[in-house]
Amino acid sequence: MELIRQLAMKTNSKIVLLVADGIGGISTVDRPTELEGAKTPNLDDLAAESVTGVHSPVAPGITPGSGPGHLALFGYDPLVFDIGRGILSALGVNFEIQPADVAARVNFATIDEQGVITDRRAGRIPTETCVQLCGELSKIQIEGLDLFVRPEKEHRAAVIFRAPGLSGSITDSDPQRLGTKPLEVLPKDPSDAGAAQMAKRVNEFIAQALAILASHHPANALLMRGFDIYEKLPSFQEIYRLNPACIAAYPMYKGVSRLVGMKVIEDGQETIADEFEVLKKHWQEHDFFFVHVKKTDSYGEDGNYDAKVKVIEELDREIHRVLELEPDVLIVTGDHSTPTDFKAHSFHPVPVLIRSRNARVDDVTRFGEKDVVHGGLGHLAGKHLMALAMAHGLKLEKFGA
Amino acid sequence: MELIRQLAMKTNSKIVLLVADGIGGISTVDRPTELEGAKTPNLDDLAAESVTGVHSPVAPGITPGSGPGHLALFGYDPLVFDIGRGILSALGVNFEIQPADVAARVNFATIDEQGVITDRRAGRIPTETCVQLCGELSKIQIEGLDLFVRPEKEHRAAVIFRAPGLSGSITDSDPQRLGTKPLEVLPKDPSDAGAAQMAKRVNEFIAQALAILASHHPANALLMRGFDIYEKLPSFQEIYRLNPACIAAYPMYKGVSRLVGMKVIEDGQETIADEFEVLKKHWQEHDFFFVHVKKTDSYGEDGNYDAKVKVIEELDREIHRVLELEPDVLIVTGDHSTPTDFKAHSFHPVPVLIRSRNARVDDVTRFGEKDVVHGGLGHLAGKHLMALAMAHGLKLEKFGA
Repeated sequence: MELIRQLAMKTNSKIVLLVADGIGGISTVDRPTELEGAKTPNLDDLAAESVTGVHSPVAPGITPGSGPGHLALFGYDPLVFDIGRGILSALGVNFEIQPADVAARVNFATIDEQGVITDRRAGRIPTETCVQLCGELSKIQIEGLDLFVRPEKEHRAAVIFRAPGLSGSITDSDPQRLGTKPLEVLPKDPSDAGAAQMAKRVNEFIAQALAILASHHPANALLMRGFDIYEKLPSFQEIYRLNPACIAAYPMYKGVSRLVGMKVIEDGQETIADEFEVLKKHWQEHDFFFVHVKKTDSYGEDGNYDAKVKVIEELDREIHRVLELEPDVLIVTGDHSTPTDFKAHSFHPVPVLIRSRNARVDDVTRFGEKDVVHGGLGHLAGKHLMALAMAHGLKLEKFGA
Repeated sequence: MELIRQLAMKTNSKIVLLVADGIGGISTVDRPTELEGAKTPNLDDLAAESVTGVHSPVAPGITPGSGPGHLALFGYDPLVFDIGRGILSALGVNFEIQPADVAARVNFATIDEQGVITDRRAGRIPTETCVQLCGELSKIQIEGLDLFVRPEKEHRAAVIFRAPGLSGSITDSDPQRLGTKPLEVLPKDPSDAGAAQMAKRVNEFIAQALAILASHHPANALLMRGFDIYEKLPSFQEIYRLNPACIAAYPMYKGVSRLVGMKVIEDGQETIADEFEVLKKHWQEHDFFFVHVKKTDSYGEDGNYDAKVKVIEELDREIHRVLELEPDVLIVTGDHSTPTDFKAHSFHPVPVLIRSRNARVDDVTRFGEKDVVHGGLGHLAGKHLMALAMAHGLKLEKFGA
């Protein structure tokens, strides 16, 4: 990354990084992957004009969460930039987190009369209840810090603590199992005075929260985990000299884009066609666009093969809107695979194509997993894709004389 | 490896790592590799149901010894876990080495009346002579430490020194050439008092050994090299949460398995069929089995193309015994290539297949070097295979949220 920063140049070329979340699948002897099963004449034509391959976002065999998967695509080694669960939760609810904030993931939960956890998800309370409870908890006052409680979906929320000099080195209150009481929050290192003070404040927050929640059965408790302090990442502007924008429909992806200094475009985009029209509308304003398609992953997680195939076919139908803008570099890939057989993210490598007039076109003519493993990019680490994007956009100087 | 340790989960799935030692070969314009030349309908069927590729155990262009080759397969970066020759020799004679033991490789040798080396291998004395000489040398007493002299094959032996606080940082007595006297053993760092004391003790051992050997021409001297202290490696149990077993016929492979905490099954196995029957017998006791086939390498080293082909065909005939056990993950590979044209280990990448219901099956239908380079695994570092084994067994949690 230091190398890229040294070599990056400002030019007029434009890069589009089109991420179909969880696009990769698994093929068996009986059935192709969703991408192979989909009818994708346009993506196939694109593949024929591109250099193709597969990438592993984190490392071979490792299943990436959405945070690490996207950081890798943005060129940030996810093993170096290990963003805690709390920060990702705060990003996921689109909270404008600031450096030195400490954030944690919250589950509303059910405890019995002895205080023992009987349901770690409070019967998956409706999101409206979550919103209301977060409103009440936001009124809690802890001396010396500001706090924010933000609802996510169902029983999920994020808490953010703000004050100078806070510590994120504290343990979870969530024991991640039933039949036990929530844990006391402790400093990870008992000799760390700052962490000890932070733990004390968080325990005070939890005590007040329990008093408020007592009358809200089944959401009569809360469990906190993944405390982490937000440290600013080097930005896209600093590293790549790009003026980047994010076009996404879901908060998590906007959050992770904000983390690396992208402008997040909020223009009411919901569908793939919406997103591509927003791209068109803002085409003159930026030289790098991250466009995120969510539903490939959602249907993968649902285990719905046909629906995942349909989303891929929808992407194929709409992609002409991107091509008409004539981006100098177009990358189509995913942040991880989500095979419908798994109903979850998986470790399988992710197909990728790079279409650019500066690409060494290979002989792959179909955008499918079995085909692109024969492509010119081979099998690469996800974190190297941004360097390739820059290179194909002629945005990197020669290294050495 | 730290990452794998964090993500590893205990599950019921079973992994078999089947290593055909030195299986890879080289193809020329006139002749295929031994694996390609062999008739292997069963391995080919297996490849058709698998994801395939090649791996480089250490790094591109590097020819691995058996120690580094296997450490890589077990997921231990051989450039980080650099096990000294002495330790490998002790493992190779199946000695139960303990942490803090210092071991060295020994050659019985011939010296003339001036003490000058005339044969570094003492005319390759018969193994029985070696056994007898080791028995005599075992009687040597050095104050403050226990010592063990163990025969290997012909002129080869291992010496192990045991006492608290020994140093392995001492130089060889073996000059590795003729026409010179054996060297005095010295501390590698002259200011290292522990190493200086160790060197003194080893020189005393050598002096006593020379007195005993004087009457045993041609084995009238000994040469020592590769002193190293044995430091315990992180175990398979610690890293992978596996309960692993080794099924091998040769001591070296049992030794290297013991090094990483595997249970070494001794059940009289000699042939491939024996090994697979032992696997069957102990199937319920473990969730990871390393099964080692030696003869592919032996015939490679002999330069016997036809015999290596026959061993591969024997493996192909017997592999149904493994398949009948229905392992959740079956990996078939080697620890390095041993082309018969080389009569030695080589640097060429090693074919690999992973058969699992969670594999993304590729379009390779033959288990041969030329075919598997087109496989879905691409060309990977050998040290990543264990992560893939774990991943295909669904034994790794997601990384990040």
